[in-house]
Amino acid sequence: MNKIAVVPGSFDPMTNGHLDIIERAVKIFDQVYVVVLDNSSKVPLFTTEERMHLIGQAVTHFPSVKVDSFSGLLVDYAKLVNANVLIRGLRAVSDFEYEMQITSANRVLNEEIETFFIMTKNKYSFLSSSIVKEVAQYGGDISELVPVHVKEALKQKYSQNA
Amino acid sequence: MNKIAVVPGSFDPMTNGHLDIIERAVKIFDQVYVVVLDNSSKVPLFTTEERMHLIGQAVTHFPSVKVDSFSGLLVDYAKLVNANVLIRGLRAVSDFEYEMQITSANRVLNEEIETFFIMTKNKYSFLSSSIVKEVAQYGGDISELVPVHVKEALKQKYSQNA
Amino acid sequence: MNKIAVVPGSFDPMTNGHLDIIERAVKIFDQVYVVVLDNSSKVPLFTTEERMHLIGQAVTHFPSVKVDSFSGLLVDYAKLVNANVLIRGLRAVSDFEYEMQITSANRVLNEEIETFFIMTKNKYSFLSSSIVKEVAQYGGDISELVPVHVKEALKQKYSQNA
Amino acid sequence: MNKIAVVPGSFDPMTNGHLDIIERAVKIFDQVYVVVLDNSSKVPLFTTEERMHLIGQAVTHFPSVKVDSFSGLLVDYAKLVNANVLIRGLRAVSDFEYEMQITSANRVLNEEIETFFIMTKNKYSFLSSSIVKEVAQYGGDISELVPVHVKEALKQKYSQNA
Amino acid sequence: MNKIAVVPGSFDPMTNGHLDIIERAVKIFDQVYVVVLDNSSKVPLFTTEERMHLIGQAVTHFPSVKVDSFSGLLVDYAKLVNANVLIRGLRAVSDFEYEMQITSANRVLNEEIETFFIMTKNKYSFLSSSIVKEVAQYGGDISELVPVHVKEALKQKYSQNA
Amino acid sequence: MNKIAVVPGSFDPMTNGHLDIIERAVKIFDQVYVVVLDNSSKVPLFTTEERMHLIGQAVTHFPSVKVDSFSGLLVDYAKLVNANVLIRGLRAVSDFEYEMQITSANRVLNEEIETFFIMTKNKYSFLSSSIVKEVAQYGGDISELVPVHVKEALKQKYSQNA
Repeated sequence: MNKIAVVPGSFDPMTNGHLDIIERAVKIFDQVYVVVLDNSSKVPLFTTEERMHLIGQAVTHFPSVKVDSFSGLLVDYAKLVNANVLIRGLRAVSDFEYEMQITSANRVLNEEIETFFIMTKNKYSFLSSSIVKEVAQYGGDISELVPVHVKEALKQKYSQNA
Repeated sequence: MNKIAVVPGSFDPMTNGHLDIIERAVKIFDQVYVVVLDNSSKVPLFTTEERMHLIGQAVTHFPSVKVDSFSGLLVDYAKLVNANVLIRGLRAVSDFEYEMQITSANRVLNEEIETFFIMTKNKYSFLSSSIVKEVAQYGGDISELVPVHVKEALKQKYSQNA
Repeated sequence: MNKIAVVPGSFDPMTNGHLDIIERAVKIFDQVYVVVLDNSSKVPLFTTEERMHLIGQAVTHFPSVKVDSFSGLLVDYAKLVNANVLIRGLRAVSDFEYEMQITSANRVLNEEIETFFIMTKNKYSFLSSSIVKEVAQYGGDISELVPVHVKEALKQKYSQNA
Repeated sequence: MNKIAVVPGSFDPMTNGHLDIIERAVKIFDQVYVVVLDNSSKVPLFTTEERMHLIGQAVTHFPSVKVDSFSGLLVDYAKLVNANVLIRGLRAVSDFEYEMQITSANRVLNEEIETFFIMTKNKYSFLSSSIVKEVAQYGGDISELVPVHVKEALKQKYSQNA
Repeated sequence: MNKIAVVPGSFDPMTNGHLDIIERAVKIFDQVYVVVLDNSSKVPLFTTEERMHLIGQAVTHFPSVKVDSFSGLLVDYAKLVNANVLIRGLRAVSDFEYEMQITSANRVLNEEIETFFIMTKNKYSFLSSSIVKEVAQYGGDISELVPVHVKEALKQKYSQNA
Repeated sequence: MNKIAVVPGSFDPMTNGHLDIIERAVKIFDQVYVVVLDNSSKVPLFTTEERMHLIGQAVTHFPSVKVDSFSGLLVDYAKLVNANVLIRGLRAVSDFEYEMQITSANRVLNEEIETFFIMTKNKYSFLSSSIVKEVAQYGGDISELVPVHVKEALKQKYSQNA
């Protein structure tokens, strides 16, 4: 039986922490769907298409990864692509509790779909898209935090806005 | 001496977790005021009246429960209804710390009023009004999470907005 | 109906934090049982009798408080004295989770008995019997942390052991 | 490629929470090794053989599960059985941090082996072997917390010790 | 070598908790810069100038303290004033994790600048600017939570807005 | 005025995480006392002299560091060496709360002595002496976790015990 996993997120934008989680999923699963969720009430910095494109450029060397977007319930997306597993990255305690809420709700909606949590590399354990955006906005160097093409996209985005 | 308790919240909308807390309070206190707080800067999904009405329908079989609303400091409301105790539900660590802040501030304002924390049933320990709204918005089944009439109210609200 | 509460603990020895919790319980309940639990596998510094005696001296002015000891399941003790409520003090996050475990187990054993958590005064929020013992053992001043007679008992205990 | 997972623990004794984690692992992996770790400095209630036997009785209907024991580094065991993944159950925050420590150390020892965390069912989220033993020791009813044969084994163990 | 510290914050408005941290920094460092950060996307209650003025009135008796404001990366400000150390107050777990994120990002930006965390007095351990504003808005007494002149400024602000 | 700091711990044995904290203290303080505390009830793996010696070898290139040992209250040691500041490393939430307890008790004992918390490097954020000992005991490679001479000392210790 094929093992199919979904790695959901808002990825606004993707960081090296996200990439680390995706790489770990790729090692274990036959197919990995990285899905940009479109539900958030917050206006994102990057459009859904831009976010998908930035992820796509980072995973070209993984033939088993597909990048997608979705608006709706994650369990519905999982059913759509026949996934058995949702993958979530774990960094800190606050993450942990929010993830527990989400997982608990997803189980009520669909008991068949399992959620696996993966710990990011220690060096990314306090990394988030918001921190990256705040540093980039003020011209700080984010080379260690995101892939090169994401760094370029942020630079362009903030020079446009300036 | 009559034991009077206040169960405050934004209840937007009431969930089975809230109901669980109210039922536990009813077992111990002679009178229980369930109070919809109107302070929040966020625009709620349901109006204060709607939220009170949804609670009211869930507690008709408890003669000792009164549903009310209030805008102002909780300790002022407690004094108004001669309550000795505030009841707060506890779910997870993030809750815990926020509740500590509130309780600490309330004590500075009025040392006479005690706060009791009650743990929800395990099955509701990761349940929140926001999760319920997100699931309902995308057509997920929330029958295990809220009373039937709340489920109907959510369905109507989201079909209106659509 | 009389409201009866149980305040359990190892009280090895009682601190001002414990006393704070007992005083808050006394304000709300008609009868309060303070119970020294005898289950622990650790050898205590004070015998059960000594621990009861130290509590007794601190609560003589509360006619509604009885001091007792028990070896067994807390819910069995509660049933024995017709208590409706267990009272537990809450200090920090680590406390919180352990208390959740205990409460959850107690509910499985007896759904009728409710657990209320009370937050200690901020000034005692990082106080524990172990810290008190460590400070006393090295001759530090614990006057702000325990009642006078507990301070004396600790002094005597550690001069005996020396 | 076969997906092989290791579910390690002290299982002293196995609870319904452990069983819940094993069942979730079975749904995703082709082969699951449940391993009783023998490293602990604490003297266990049940011998390694007894613990393995109690697990074995609970998983007879899962042909893909093997029960084993090991003394040494978990990553060495994983290599031995060609496992790609370690499975750990997550309950609360204190768990979470300890697991992070272990995972971090395991990664330093072997970058190839991935750790997946799975959340237990809400109803087991505050369940532990220690709580089970404490309740059983005082004659409390643990039918909802462990499989029947574990309940019997605990009863026998504590009547022997009495 | 002179020891120079930066105490950053949004200080909207300054509380007794902030003052406690500043006083502890003053005891150790030769020069202390208290800096109002202007980055937040949220509209503050007090303007940057008002916030600086309220801090200034509270620290007039500390000749080594300078009040300033800044928009940009904290590490850039630190370099500007030749500071070796950033000082952050620690209250609760949620604080702790956010601070870890910030510190981690700052280290990537400038390894030379160290961050020291200081614990506030227990009596301020659950105090925040938001709690103060909520209490003040509804006419509660905040005399124990902020300096007198901040209390007056809040009173004026909320009577203007009413 | 000279700035003098104390870095206390059990250091059984010193890890790279400890060394990281000491190096950060050295950058800011004129004199740093690294103190092996002898209070613990647990029997350590290394004697006090061995632990001091292992630290000493790691800090020979820091002329401002002195290695010492002490049995008693930390604030008494601080007074003895005229230190104004205690330095504690912070890793995770469980650390954080324990440190809060200790700091709170120390403040009751001596208001003059300040405690500064420093975050370890991310790569050491889940590192502890116990983990190091467990890995070393089973022959795992600890080269990235401790200095070379500590690795040798552990190897010798465990071959002696075998």
